[in-house]
Amino acid sequence: MWQLYQFPLCPFTRKVRILLGEKDVGYELVREIPWTRRDEFLDMNPAGQTPVMVDGERGTVLIDSAAICEYFEETVDRAAMINGSAANRAEIRRLVAWFDTQFFRDVSQPLVEERMVKRLVLRQSPNAARLREAMKSAIGHLDYIDYLLDHRKWMAGATISLADLAAAAHISVADYLGGIDWSGHTHAKAWYSAFKSRRSFRPLLAERMSGIEPPSYYENPDF
Amino acid sequence: MWQLYQFPLCPFTRKVRILLGEKDVGYELVREIPWTRRDEFLDMNPAGQTPVMVDGERGTVLIDSAAICEYFEETVDRAAMINGSAANRAEIRRLVAWFDTQFFRDVSQPLVEERMVKRLVLRQSPNAARLREAMKSAIGHLDYIDYLLDHRKWMAGATISLADLAAAAHISVADYLGGIDWSGHTHAKAWYSAFKSRRSFRPLLAERMSGIEPPSYYENPDF
Repeated sequence: MWQLYQFPLCPFTRKVRILLGEKDVGYELVREIPWTRRDEFLDMNPAGQTPVMVDGERGTVLIDSAAICEYFEETVDRAAMINGSAANRAEIRRLVAWFDTQFFRDVSQPLVEERMVKRLVLRQSPNAARLREAMKSAIGHLDYIDYLLDHRKWMAGATISLADLAAAAHISVADYLGGIDWSGHTHAKAWYSAFKSRRSFRPLLAERMSGIEPPSYYENPDF
Repeated sequence: MWQLYQFPLCPFTRKVRILLGEKDVGYELVREIPWTRRDEFLDMNPAGQTPVMVDGERGTVLIDSAAICEYFEETVDRAAMINGSAANRAEIRRLVAWFDTQFFRDVSQPLVEERMVKRLVLRQSPNAARLREAMKSAIGHLDYIDYLLDHRKWMAGATISLADLAAAAHISVADYLGGIDWSGHTHAKAWYSAFKSRRSFRPLLAERMSGIEPPSYYENPDF
């Protein structure tokens, strides 16, 4: 049985967990708050980041969410999520990198640091200007998603792919932390509404980070 | 013929170019300085980053260095660089992400911003404290590389892989900008010395960014 080191509001872990759900791969959660920089965790992953997956029986350790997704894509045939031609696969990987790098830097990272880490780990007040900036950036990102979904059924083309999983992972963390204003983003909202009903995603929406409550509409597919 | 949008000291482009060299894929260079945020380039890649590859005849646009490397790994059989078992491939991708994220953030990004962008684009003086911090981080990273190469012939195992290409790409940019102190790093130095002689890497070492000179030993395999 795989062990998955994570905390509930880690967007990179959410991406991996939705993929594992789609592929029906079982795992056991191990709570890890990377900001505490626990020695045993740093020995396993010098980058100090979640997610990390460990298969103790086989002695396999998987580190880095992109490497983990590629691993399960290569080893589990069910529910291919990096699919299509080589050019399609490049577009999927571009968009995954877009959410993991640009959306993370602009939106999910500042929200997690200001609203989660400062409250639960550092015991500090959030920086209101940085939060406002993140919420403004989120609007720009939803505009881009609207643009993509105006041309395509799913984020990277005609079928669901890892790009949708990455997008839902980051957006759900930002939404939990009150960083998403859905008004006016018709395509993005319809896409996310449908995504919320997926069997792979519902268990994640049901989890709570103790001490931080999401908005009332957070779990609701009709929002 | 592929067109490759880049500037000589972009570590992500160097990684792609070494891979294309190993695989004997031809391309034409197009100069792009991302910090000028040229409209036509942003229309092509909203992330505004190099490298971008365009095949005008086929209408293919490849964006993000990891997606580009995976594309050529999938479409060109020669010189497989994400090789071995699924677990080996995960370790290669982990290390590529390590250099592209951690080494970049700690070493190559501050060096490029302080020593190249401030000189050529912003016309400002470099921040000496930030440069010192980057050079100190570089020592820690070389320690980690020494540790890896004490156990393995190449960065990710018994054979050369994309992890070595990513490492050489970032290290060469940092070395060009005078950020690497090689003393005391026996394994890392021997590995880099051998890498410098590769046919795929020598053309990159011969290039210059006008207005910035590398140290005298920069191109020399015996340094």
